Amino acid sequence: MSLRIDQTHLPELRSWVPSADGHPEFPIQNLPLCIFSIGEGAPRGGVVIGDRLLDLAALLASGLLSSSDAELIGHAAGLELNPFIGLSADRRRQFRTIISGLLAAGSEAAARTDALLVPTATARFHMPASVGDYSDFFAGICHATNAGRFFRPDNPLLPNYKHVPIAYHGRSSSIRVSGEDVIHPHGQRAAHGSTEPTFGPSRRVDFELELGMWARGGNRLGQPIPISEAGDHLAGISLLNDWSARDIQAWETQPLGPFLGKNFLTTVSPFIVTAEALAPFRREQASRAEGDPQPLPYLLDPSDQASGALDVHLDVFISTAAMRASGLAPCRLTQASTRDLYWTPAQMIAHHSSNGCDLRAGDLLGTGTISSPNSDGHGSLLEMTGGGRNEITLPSGEQRLFLEDGDDIIFTGYCEAEGFARIGFGTAVGRVVANPYWGENA
Amino acid sequence: MSLRIDQTHLPELRSWVPSADGHPEFPIQNLPLCIFSIGEGAPRGGVVIGDRLLDLAALLASGLLSSSDAELIGHAAGLELNPFIGLSADRRRQFRTIISGLLAAGSEAAARTDALLVPTATARFHMPASVGDYSDFFAGICHATNAGRFFRPDNPLLPNYKHVPIAYHGRSSSIRVSGEDVIHPHGQRAAHGSTEPTFGPSRRVDFELELGMWARGGNRLGQPIPISEAGDHLAGISLLNDWSARDIQAWETQPLGPFLGKNFLTTVSPFIVTAEALAPFRREQASRAEGDPQPLPYLLDPSDQASGALDVHLDVFISTAAMRASGLAPCRLTQASTRDLYWTPAQMIAHHSSNGCDLRAGDLLGTGTISSPNSDGHGSLLEMTGGGRNEITLPSGEQRLFLEDGDDIIFTGYCEAEGFARIGFGTAVGRVVANPYWGENA
Repeated sequence: MSLRIDQTHLPELRSWVPSADGHPEFPIQNLPLCIFSIGEGAPRGGVVIGDRLLDLAALLASGLLSSSDAELIGHAAGLELNPFIGLSADRRRQFRTIISGLLAAGSEAAARTDALLVPTATARFHMPASVGDYSDFFAGICHATNAGRFFRPDNPLLPNYKHVPIAYHGRSSSIRVSGEDVIHPHGQRAAHGSTEPTFGPSRRVDFELELGMWARGGNRLGQPIPISEAGDHLAGISLLNDWSARDIQAWETQPLGPFLGKNFLTTVSPFIVTAEALAPFRREQASRAEGDPQPLPYLLDPSDQASGALDVHLDVFISTAAMRASGLAPCRLTQASTRDLYWTPAQMIAHHSSNGCDLRAGDLLGTGTISSPNSDGHGSLLEMTGGGRNEITLPSGEQRLFLEDGDDIIFTGYCEAEGFARIGFGTAVGRVVANPYWGENA
Repeated sequence: MSLRIDQTHLPELRSWVPSADGHPEFPIQNLPLCIFSIGEGAPRGGVVIGDRLLDLAALLASGLLSSSDAELIGHAAGLELNPFIGLSADRRRQFRTIISGLLAAGSEAAARTDALLVPTATARFHMPASVGDYSDFFAGICHATNAGRFFRPDNPLLPNYKHVPIAYHGRSSSIRVSGEDVIHPHGQRAAHGSTEPTFGPSRRVDFELELGMWARGGNRLGQPIPISEAGDHLAGISLLNDWSARDIQAWETQPLGPFLGKNFLTTVSPFIVTAEALAPFRREQASRAEGDPQPLPYLLDPSDQASGALDVHLDVFISTAAMRASGLAPCRLTQASTRDLYWTPAQMIAHHSSNGCDLRAGDLLGTGTISSPNSDGHGSLLEMTGGGRNEITLPSGEQRLFLEDGDDIIFTGYCEAEGFARIGFGTAVGRVVANPYWGENA
């Protein structure tokens, strides 16, 4: 795996963009990518710096770049970032070096580049990439344990968990960028233990706190990606909310797994924080306990074990209609860390392709719900409320077991480490709204 | 649902194409669509008639069509059939009427159209459409019962089965057109009851006999497709083999369902037999037994119950390397009928969108494995061998529990009904081959 700390990561590196230095999310050490538009303009690629976006389509047209640099930057300048995601790690690093050089204090191109910046606040964001296939893992071991405890109190983790990076296929059509409403799903629900379902609005709409990993892909059908190369196949990450309707899911899920309980919407944040920006924040694989089985050889790589784990801090906030009407700020529901993921991105990618499944540039791999071992670190309401039994009281005095129409759920995240500038992920937000198509008693 | 029998279905309708009349699969009453190429030529849309293909790109260029007809035919003339699949049922019917008119005996355009025909035997076939999402149902009630019996001998069908059209998300990247090799999947397998997996080639490679339904799509996120309209959303069907590695599947499947046990390859036949061609072969929903629960209102439509079920006869053949070396013909393993599907296509489409999941033109919906109630009608080796216990003896004297390298599996299918010309589906074939990437002891 090519995790290299270079001059683009140095904390003393400064930018001529006024809002960049000391920005809590987007200093010059981050430089996440997105697809944005302004007004009626066409969507195009951008790089976030401070409170500005560098318009990559305008950069290409500016003549500022050499032809070889323009060819490389062109991979992120169009309607979707899939060409960028498909680049090799070396080419991604070159990309970062070019952009960092343009935006660094002292750049000779500062004045001409300044003309290519637009205020982030004026932009509309689009899906950063076209998702061919969306696979959702189950790597959050605390979540797997918490969820398993509802069914098997004495033995919550299934026997395969510490051997197989468990995953299922999700739905790609219903993935949307942050801001899309969560149209309240309707479906078949059966009371606990009942086998007589009714059809109507879900009574258990929930969030799931995840990261989305953008995969480089490119392996041929039948061709596995070796664990030693799989780390380089992670192009970047975004925040991901795998919205879930727990009652629909519970009734439909046997024997083939979740379907309509999940595929009504998945929300991703607009920014892809690149694997290069994450390099200073990679850690040893800390989630394995004494006595855990050794990963099978196809999942075992010393450098991956030493530095393949992600170290991202995540926060979840809620804001209800009543809270907004009373002027109350969003209230934090939970906080968690990707250090509680049992498998590294490389292990998930190597596993996914181990049977010959072909990955494509822009495939999205969810980590699975990320919970921490602490009771303030549950990555879903299902866990926070003990399976829908213990209500949460909000600052407005309202109580919640699951989400109600008008509720916003907001994800944020950041990485920090001694000796490096902190970088952030932006937000992934969605508001639950009534379904306008079904009557109340459909 | 608009199932209309018109002059394009009449058994006495004849074609000027010499091989068409009486063809067991492709008389003028069928007219399935495909994407094909000849030599180094670009892929383009075609219509199958007898042993010929009508080249739709050449038809467009010929000047034979009025501009409005050319606009419509253009939906099937390009690199993929997704635009055709997205047409309304009315427009699909117009499409069929135009093509049928060109190919019917007595057509004034016969001589000029003849110049646009190519021999099917010279064509290479491509994926008929780009599959956005692939969803696989579980509507074969005999298969669900047979598979469930291995786990719950006294109560094989789960309580949700007769209420919910069970499905799971499949993988779209690894769908290929007939003829693609099945590169032997490797993966984690644990001996029955063991919790110590090893990694290596699957010992239980299996086929699953299914149909693939091509969905028109077009509903917005959040917007269900009502059952009364869902029948028209079926654009056509192909044969589908949902290849499965039973040992990988068994070990990975809890709690989220199948993943690597399925996504190494899914094979579809090259031809889309349109919903219009199928009109004479639709039947009442026969799979429900006395005392079965009434479908919930969102799945219940009288015209769908009266004529929404498919009536397709399916055959599965095997040919091993030794059989081919001995000059033995492929041997039939099984035969089954779609009348043993518990849910109609309309019910599956209405259910899929009932939670607001958006479907796109070209989404592929598998029916699930189709088995008949008889012991000669098992849609998988898992069922035929009693869960891998009772070997099958082939005409070569070879025995099989599951597939071995060199084995071909061949699907064919047809529809027939009193007073109508029989129509067929072509073939879906795949050969299991050793994986060239992993060593034997990976």
